[in-house]
Amino acid sequence: MKQFMNDRETLVTEAIDGLLRTAGGRLARLDGYPHIKVVVRTDWDRAKVALVSGGGSGHEPSHAGFVGQGMLTAAVCGDVFASPSVDAVLAGILAVTGKAGCLLIVKNYTGDRLNFGLAAERARAFGLKVAMVIVDDDVALPDLPQARGVAGTLFVHKIAGALAEAGADLDTIAAAAQGVIKGAISIGMSLDTCTVPGSPKEDRIGQGKAELGLGIHGEAGVEQVDFSGARAAIQMVAARLAPHMGKGDHVALLNNLGSTTPLEMSLLAEELARSPIAPQIKALIGPAPLMTSLDMHGFSLSLLPLDEDRARLLAAPVAPMPGPAACPWGRWRCGPCPTGWRRSSLCLRPIRRGGR
Amino acid sequence: MKQFMNDRETLVTEAIDGLLRTAGGRLARLDGYPHIKVVVRTDWDRAKVALVSGGGSGHEPSHAGFVGQGMLTAAVCGDVFASPSVDAVLAGILAVTGKAGCLLIVKNYTGDRLNFGLAAERARAFGLKVAMVIVDDDVALPDLPQARGVAGTLFVHKIAGALAEAGADLDTIAAAAQGVIKGAISIGMSLDTCTVPGSPKEDRIGQGKAELGLGIHGEAGVEQVDFSGARAAIQMVAARLAPHMGKGDHVALLNNLGSTTPLEMSLLAEELARSPIAPQIKALIGPAPLMTSLDMHGFSLSLLPLDEDRARLLAAPVAPMPGPAACPWGRWRCGPCPTGWRRSSLCLRPIRRGGR
Repeated sequence: MKQFMNDRETLVTEAIDGLLRTAGGRLARLDGYPHIKVVVRTDWDRAKVALVSGGGSGHEPSHAGFVGQGMLTAAVCGDVFASPSVDAVLAGILAVTGKAGCLLIVKNYTGDRLNFGLAAERARAFGLKVAMVIVDDDVALPDLPQARGVAGTLFVHKIAGALAEAGADLDTIAAAAQGVIKGAISIGMSLDTCTVPGSPKEDRIGQGKAELGLGIHGEAGVEQVDFSGARAAIQMVAARLAPHMGKGDHVALLNNLGSTTPLEMSLLAEELARSPIAPQIKALIGPAPLMTSLDMHGFSLSLLPLDEDRARLLAAPVAPMPGPAACPWGRWRCGPCPTGWRRSSLCLRPIRRGGR
Repeated sequence: MKQFMNDRETLVTEAIDGLLRTAGGRLARLDGYPHIKVVVRTDWDRAKVALVSGGGSGHEPSHAGFVGQGMLTAAVCGDVFASPSVDAVLAGILAVTGKAGCLLIVKNYTGDRLNFGLAAERARAFGLKVAMVIVDDDVALPDLPQARGVAGTLFVHKIAGALAEAGADLDTIAAAAQGVIKGAISIGMSLDTCTVPGSPKEDRIGQGKAELGLGIHGEAGVEQVDFSGARAAIQMVAARLAPHMGKGDHVALLNNLGSTTPLEMSLLAEELARSPIAPQIKALIGPAPLMTSLDMHGFSLSLLPLDEDRARLLAAPVAPMPGPAACPWGRWRCGPCPTGWRRSSLCLRPIRRGGR
């Protein structure tokens, strides 16, 4: 498969540098390439609780694209679909965590749980307050003891991010995040698999078929279903989510898994409004590419019970996303890597403008 | 090809309704389906100059997605890759134009030129001040007497939009738009063609090849070139633009033509910063899907000479784009259609909150 890259080995680091270059000075990274790929806010105030998330790349804008005001403090990026190392996560934690502590928001995959968990242990040995939550919103595999973390992770980022921005303490934020995780449910549907850079595309889903309950790393869906259009697709997805919904209001998150066109995504939003679960949906995030799976032609729908607090936090302002306004480009800073990768000192310096 | 739609005939109207539903009340449409597909701002102040643009659908978020603060007042949407009718354009003009007048921003295609032009004539017969500009930024076909309008159209929308929002008069805005058109240049490159809904996908671009200078409606590129990665791709595109660049600073617009992943787009931005034309680029719009061609796996690069005025106008705030913040959904208004489609009166009422 042809892709706009130079080399699979440098795809993620070059893409991160491009992201930094186009972030108008809001973002920086630690000086630890190629092993340590950590994107941080430049305007970070260590008096607040830091939010660190991440995982394999290929889900953009998650996670580096959500570093900024009201969302993440740092994103630790692995290679495509590969967990970042313990060292990388530790570097991220050390770079942004002050006395207020740090919350790690981790999707429920073995590698991520292990590496973020070990990094948390090591950070605590440095005397830092570190809490960790595991997101497991995917309802596709009801019998799996450990459900996967997918697009519902964004609910956690957004709500914890708004709380951290407002100055809430670590216990409050961790409890809110845990509450969100308890309530968040997601499922995806796709018409085609994703193209992993450097690998041939798998031709798994036949004509007239769709996969329901797929994973965001190209994992096969729970089942192949007949595909007869957008209306039936939303109804099928809604039917899988409905048994997990409580009574009361919900917020929905309509996620583009990659290459679904905006026309299709808008149409799916319209069908969602006509679906049996619509009366319970009071607010929407998207439709937009939020937790993608490279170029997958699919979507996912996530739901979260909504109360006044959550509604306020979910609507709170966030750092600007790329859109039709111009921003200056080309300048970003490479901060010292606190775990000493390519640097000798374990400096713990905050990465911020005019930093000490 | 499988797509998330119900019926080709209703694809665009259902997608527009979905867009309205997810715009948090900022957008409405005229009551003229299926022939009149006009999206308007709900917060519009007719004391200001109205900006009306549009054309065939399939380029989302252009144009309906750019209706709002600091951009368009109304978007007149045709079917996929088909010009809207004269009636539809006239309805759009009449719905939003007050004494300050209206600027039509039209991409240089025969159907659009004709239909927007005739609608302008008819609107003038109603006593309205209407000016029209034709965007022809594509440099792919140097010998063509009429260059195509592609992603550089966004420069015109953004600069005219910021001026209109600030209360500039029609002559000033039209002159600024004309100046932008004179300076804007664009070219695209794609690794695959787009999938037109309901039609089989054309398999035109072979392995190891890319098309340079393609159109945004699936028109074949000016030539097929060897594709050897992102660096060479940007260098080739930059080399085509360079002879058309004057001296001095420029703003770049890096546009995702559809299904290029955010990883690839960020990497292309990084390569742009390493390209020979980089020293002249002082600001960037994107990378983002701005003027897409359905699901085309490609990008385009546009350039515009930059001065202080343009820099300020290009950085001016715009209405929020879909991102990670939640907004209430489900409510939007259907305004009366001023050309009387499905309505008996030619009412000329402004489509605004609490309107007369």
